[in-house]
Amino acid sequence: MKLNQFARLTPDHATQVQELAKLGFTTDPTLDLTTLVRTNLPLLFPEAYSPTAKQQALANVAIDAHRTLVDLTQAEVTHISRVEFYAAVLQLLGFEPFTDYPLDDPLAFMAQTQLPTIAEDIDTPAAFLDALYLLLTTRTKHLVNYLDALATRGFFKDFQGDTPRYLFFNGKAQNVFDARQLHREVVWIESDLDTDHDGQRDLLEATIFRPLETDHGLKMPVLFTANPYFHGTNDVDWITHEPSTRVAVKTHSRTKTEVTAAPATPPVLPHHPVNGEAREAEVYADENGIYALNDYFLGRGFVTVYSAGVGTRGSDGVRSTGGQSETDSAVAVIEWLTGARRAFTNRTDGIEIKAWWCNGKVAMTGKSYLGTLAIAAATSGVAGLKTVISESAISSWYDYYRENGLVVAPGGFQGEDADVLAVDTYSRQKTTGDFLRMKPTWDQALAAITAAQDRETGDYTAWWDARNYRNHLANITCDIVSTHGLNDWNVKPKNVIKLWEGLRALPIHKKLFLHQGQHVYVNNVLSLDFTDMMNLWLSYELLDVDNGAPDQLPNVTVQDNVEPETWHTYSDFGRDDDAHQQQRVNLATGTTHTRASFADNATATFSAHHETSDTYELEIVKPDSLYNEDRLWLDLPAFDHQVTLEGTPSVHLRLWIDAPTAILSVRLVDVGPAQRFGPVAKTVEAAGYPLGFDYKTTTILEFAKAAPTASKLITFGHVNVQNQKNAYENVPVTPGEPFTLDFELQPTHLTLPADRHLALIIHGADMAQTHRPTAVTNYHLDLEASTLTLPLRLKA
Amino acid sequence: MKLNQFARLTPDHATQVQELAKLGFTTDPTLDLTTLVRTNLPLLFPEAYSPTAKQQALANVAIDAHRTLVDLTQAEVTHISRVEFYAAVLQLLGFEPFTDYPLDDPLAFMAQTQLPTIAEDIDTPAAFLDALYLLLTTRTKHLVNYLDALATRGFFKDFQGDTPRYLFFNGKAQNVFDARQLHREVVWIESDLDTDHDGQRDLLEATIFRPLETDHGLKMPVLFTANPYFHGTNDVDWITHEPSTRVAVKTHSRTKTEVTAAPATPPVLPHHPVNGEAREAEVYADENGIYALNDYFLGRGFVTVYSAGVGTRGSDGVRSTGGQSETDSAVAVIEWLTGARRAFTNRTDGIEIKAWWCNGKVAMTGKSYLGTLAIAAATSGVAGLKTVISESAISSWYDYYRENGLVVAPGGFQGEDADVLAVDTYSRQKTTGDFLRMKPTWDQALAAITAAQDRETGDYTAWWDARNYRNHLANITCDIVSTHGLNDWNVKPKNVIKLWEGLRALPIHKKLFLHQGQHVYVNNVLSLDFTDMMNLWLSYELLDVDNGAPDQLPNVTVQDNVEPETWHTYSDFGRDDDAHQQQRVNLATGTTHTRASFADNATATFSAHHETSDTYELEIVKPDSLYNEDRLWLDLPAFDHQVTLEGTPSVHLRLWIDAPTAILSVRLVDVGPAQRFGPVAKTVEAAGYPLGFDYKTTTILEFAKAAPTASKLITFGHVNVQNQKNAYENVPVTPGEPFTLDFELQPTHLTLPADRHLALIIHGADMAQTHRPTAVTNYHLDLEASTLTLPLRLKA
Repeated sequence: MKLNQFARLTPDHATQVQELAKLGFTTDPTLDLTTLVRTNLPLLFPEAYSPTAKQQALANVAIDAHRTLVDLTQAEVTHISRVEFYAAVLQLLGFEPFTDYPLDDPLAFMAQTQLPTIAEDIDTPAAFLDALYLLLTTRTKHLVNYLDALATRGFFKDFQGDTPRYLFFNGKAQNVFDARQLHREVVWIESDLDTDHDGQRDLLEATIFRPLETDHGLKMPVLFTANPYFHGTNDVDWITHEPSTRVAVKTHSRTKTEVTAAPATPPVLPHHPVNGEAREAEVYADENGIYALNDYFLGRGFVTVYSAGVGTRGSDGVRSTGGQSETDSAVAVIEWLTGARRAFTNRTDGIEIKAWWCNGKVAMTGKSYLGTLAIAAATSGVAGLKTVISESAISSWYDYYRENGLVVAPGGFQGEDADVLAVDTYSRQKTTGDFLRMKPTWDQALAAITAAQDRETGDYTAWWDARNYRNHLANITCDIVSTHGLNDWNVKPKNVIKLWEGLRALPIHKKLFLHQGQHVYVNNVLSLDFTDMMNLWLSYELLDVDNGAPDQLPNVTVQDNVEPETWHTYSDFGRDDDAHQQQRVNLATGTTHTRASFADNATATFSAHHETSDTYELEIVKPDSLYNEDRLWLDLPAFDHQVTLEGTPSVHLRLWIDAPTAILSVRLVDVGPAQRFGPVAKTVEAAGYPLGFDYKTTTILEFAKAAPTASKLITFGHVNVQNQKNAYENVPVTPGEPFTLDFELQPTHLTLPADRHLALIIHGADMAQTHRPTAVTNYHLDLEASTLTLPLRLKA
Repeated sequence: MKLNQFARLTPDHATQVQELAKLGFTTDPTLDLTTLVRTNLPLLFPEAYSPTAKQQALANVAIDAHRTLVDLTQAEVTHISRVEFYAAVLQLLGFEPFTDYPLDDPLAFMAQTQLPTIAEDIDTPAAFLDALYLLLTTRTKHLVNYLDALATRGFFKDFQGDTPRYLFFNGKAQNVFDARQLHREVVWIESDLDTDHDGQRDLLEATIFRPLETDHGLKMPVLFTANPYFHGTNDVDWITHEPSTRVAVKTHSRTKTEVTAAPATPPVLPHHPVNGEAREAEVYADENGIYALNDYFLGRGFVTVYSAGVGTRGSDGVRSTGGQSETDSAVAVIEWLTGARRAFTNRTDGIEIKAWWCNGKVAMTGKSYLGTLAIAAATSGVAGLKTVISESAISSWYDYYRENGLVVAPGGFQGEDADVLAVDTYSRQKTTGDFLRMKPTWDQALAAITAAQDRETGDYTAWWDARNYRNHLANITCDIVSTHGLNDWNVKPKNVIKLWEGLRALPIHKKLFLHQGQHVYVNNVLSLDFTDMMNLWLSYELLDVDNGAPDQLPNVTVQDNVEPETWHTYSDFGRDDDAHQQQRVNLATGTTHTRASFADNATATFSAHHETSDTYELEIVKPDSLYNEDRLWLDLPAFDHQVTLEGTPSVHLRLWIDAPTAILSVRLVDVGPAQRFGPVAKTVEAAGYPLGFDYKTTTILEFAKAAPTASKLITFGHVNVQNQKNAYENVPVTPGEPFTLDFELQPTHLTLPADRHLALIIHGADMAQTHRPTAVTNYHLDLEASTLTLPLRLKA
């Protein structure tokens, strides 16, 4: 086990002492070591209310085979050895002698687990206080820090007096509020939209979880999650598309101007009149919060807000799958939170309600569509949005449902498209009366999405351009945290890396986390102190704590794919600098052929073997595969040492085919027998991660090695052979005439050990993600005229 | 989906009206239908606090394609058709028109889902109130009843005034208390034991979750779970046994007297002195409750208590794996709860604390070891224990770790034994100081368990007899609810069925639930209203509600293994009466042979194929198996119609072998290609089941059909060929000399469709559960002299 920790600050001794005193520890510099030990150790057992109960607890923690912490508190203490101290510390952190570590050698385990220790034995009062401070900021085996663990056992239960207040320790907001007792409120925010064309401003429902302490004058910041799934989803079987059995020959090539979206002009609409004002809502929020990271911060003085946006249950309007109206929906919530927009306690009476409890600072959080809308809102430059923590997010919807002039489904969701997601999230359907009244309007809006998404050509259009948030990065003024899975084939890594590249020059702070998972949150992964980093970050961003978070947190944190529980930190990702090198590999290298051919009949192979998208994705990357005949497998020369790929590989291919159009796919594969990480993180401890005092818990996970495999997908790419220039211009292909394709694969970061090598698979249709043509197409590659360019990281 | 419901009472109209009035509904008999509709429908939206918000909510529920509940509340109402009413009711229950049912035909869906409906259209005020009452007691799609769902949305949030009180509706305690705010207390109960031989009475830690309403004079009953795992478990790799490679020839045959346990004599010990008294504990309980059923009842006015017993963290003493000291530990908690025993606020000061908030009535709950201790405590006849809800429980530890003179592991836990479980649950190890002080005592106690369990012979001894709770069933005075999985090969069904048979003649109420799962709780299975039944039961047992629970609940409820979501009810299980018949099948029937032989070399087969216990258990029951040579497969004649097995099959086998001893196993298998239930219930909705107002949620599950298989294990049995009479007497076996074995398989309940048939597999060692002998043994069966007796249920 390695408990990496990036969020621990090491202030100077005087600051440490001052912070300890704030917690109630005795720090008087005139006291001797004996007194400090005797007065402070009992405080580490907040569940014990009486001196006797504390003695009982102290007696359970051994410092060696014969003595416990009780002995320390009853003797004259002039010296505590590191071995004694950490023998006890590990027990306090949740580890067990005999099971986890030898009682007489805790330091080896501390080192192996990457837990910090003091450098010297404790001989002075000051050294004891340093050791105590370090202990409080050290990670337990239950994801939280030791002070957080104490808080879940009641350390702060009597902290609040008549005037509620925050407590910061080691730069982070502490669990001094009561997450159990919340105002759960629903309000309706007036937008500038009229997406259902009824001449009225669309009202947007928002749900607020607000700690009671706000009633006593404390203003709190907000963690806001724009979550289209908040009120549930609809069955989409009826609208999910069958992959087409043909690839269209394109006849209409577009220009850059044609595919540039015009800015939306908001309609001019009357305001809903205000007839009164209320301080409390009149509807109880019956949905629960959905993100443990948000819940974790409730007890630390953050209000959490969820809003699902236009077209969802309780709100007006229709869905647009990433359109401007959904960005505006999220922005409207922030504007209300910061006092720039009105909201009402119900839909009709005009009773206004203000976010009077908000300190005016907002962060957005969420994964996937939720994180996507956080990025979307950030590109508005809305005031009050200080940062977004955007996980596994889409930065351009074309990169979610399309690729280089092809319909390419998100991994795991063959046949999904923008219209499918619109139906999925149109949760107004769940309130039947409302749904029936809206049916004609919604049917029309949905039909427009189905037409505009254009499954025939797969080309980039103005409609997709309006859903490319990267067009507006220059507007961003808030700081950005992104996380993404290096094996996320649902929202593919291109989304986060192109965002990262687009943000590089902006005068904002930005942080990037890349993990070995697929499409998942990373807040409950044991080897990383992600939540704690976000505490440092949010305390800085939303509560003005001068904790140096932007400098403390690494710019780029990447999980290693070979060594478990190992996270690398870098100043940037895949940059064109002297830490990186582009290496071009001629595809004829290592083969005796200059040309190679294959006939793509994968659709038939797929059907004959009753394959599913899931089995196909495993099968197509096997060295010996059902699809041997439907692909080229090119083993690349092995490196003679371990290398790290980092960035965006690309290919330059020279080929001809026997048809006027085709799908071409490439996959870069890590080859060689090895135990690699499995697709899903393993449960370390169900309900092991406490989110507050007497409050919810969640599961602790870790990415872990799975059964050995011969190969694993690193990255891939798809192109329509007619899209030789870009995703909107079409170049006619003449059967038998050679042409050139240049395109990028998904960005990656991969450690390739010296005993493994790369292979490039070139094939036609991708059964899991593209159309599935039934006509057999022959591909002839000119290997000597074709290259793969690999981005290498040369140094840390 | 079928939402079976057994706990709904149908009181007379006057009672229904009276109960509705208690909830705050308008029931004045002088009012007309229009007024009743107008005043009562808005109450179904407790999350809406204002009239406008309620109108908003009413407008979302359609009664047909054009009208909603708002229209009903605004018109003169003289008639509401069943179709209109149930079109709306299904939406209230969480179903969706278009997705789940056609809006214009709700009644077909109601019938299919087994939801109750009123018989006639609503034309009178009385009919409306009847319909309203029925609605409130109808199941939603989220496991709870509709009134419970209203409670989770705040229906009762303002119910409590200055004097806390219970509310019962339809015979069940309602969610009128606040489960979020609890006293979490730890106390130490003084036992009569001294299992660590220090001359002091062992103090037993107990954890209490107590609703704050008890502070205001309300006395509450207790749901008590004796849970040895409550403070965690220890790593047992080092003590888990390797299955032996030989089967011992037994030399010491015991008599009945020798294997009869002497009653334990409690030591005479001084009491811990009492030096004072406190009303509140001085230690906060930092462990969370572990059973959703318990948590569910907190908001309904039940205190929950957990205690782990002797040898667990915080308690004195040593583990005994089901010994008298563990029974006494559980009983001691009940005695304290009912005022018959003292407890202290800490281990040393003598400050007594009474369970002053307890109404003197206790139920025990829990699964596996937990449910086992509930049965153990029941056999003490302790006063105040009114009922136990014992799930998947052991009724004799010999039936858990042994069988017919063999060491037979619990399924999934090859190599586990009593000493392994003792180490596993000796959580004093987690408090290192305490552990070190106790080490010599514990090492000695553990060595005694290892010796006494006797893995050499596997015979029944006085040590095992002391762990056979069925010896003391006559002492039971409380009512018993048992649940058990028909596919539970961990705690095998014999445990519950032999208990059931032993209880049959006792003047207590007893209820039996048999489900298609393995070793699992059944409280969150969607197709059964188990929690609601337990609410009826516990309201009757612990709160003196005169709800007729013993008559309302079926005696025996069995889940069908063919039809999903189908539960049969019976007055008894496997009884020797005219509903049942024993059918004897000669094993030569259907074969052309009168004899059959096999050579058991399964251990070699097992090793050669790198099998695990899990893969072995699937492989051995396949018609064509790796173990073909190591077994006999006897297809039994097919029935020409569907039959139901119910009870305990047995075999009478005539055979000889070429060794002085051997293991013999038989498996009864359901044969024929079919989709059968998978081993694990499927998640219907994660976090879909609300356990109270603004409180925890848990997952909703359902047993569901899995991929088709050719066969599935129904039941099995194992015997040591030397144990021809019973589990303690040994009969020498002479190689080549025939002998007879008569033994029972595990009890079962199985529907066998007419297109499937039974097969009996006869084999030697069971790689997953018995020793794994390496010597090859030859078995020669005299089929004509051998029979299988099948218990059939002939009628309902």
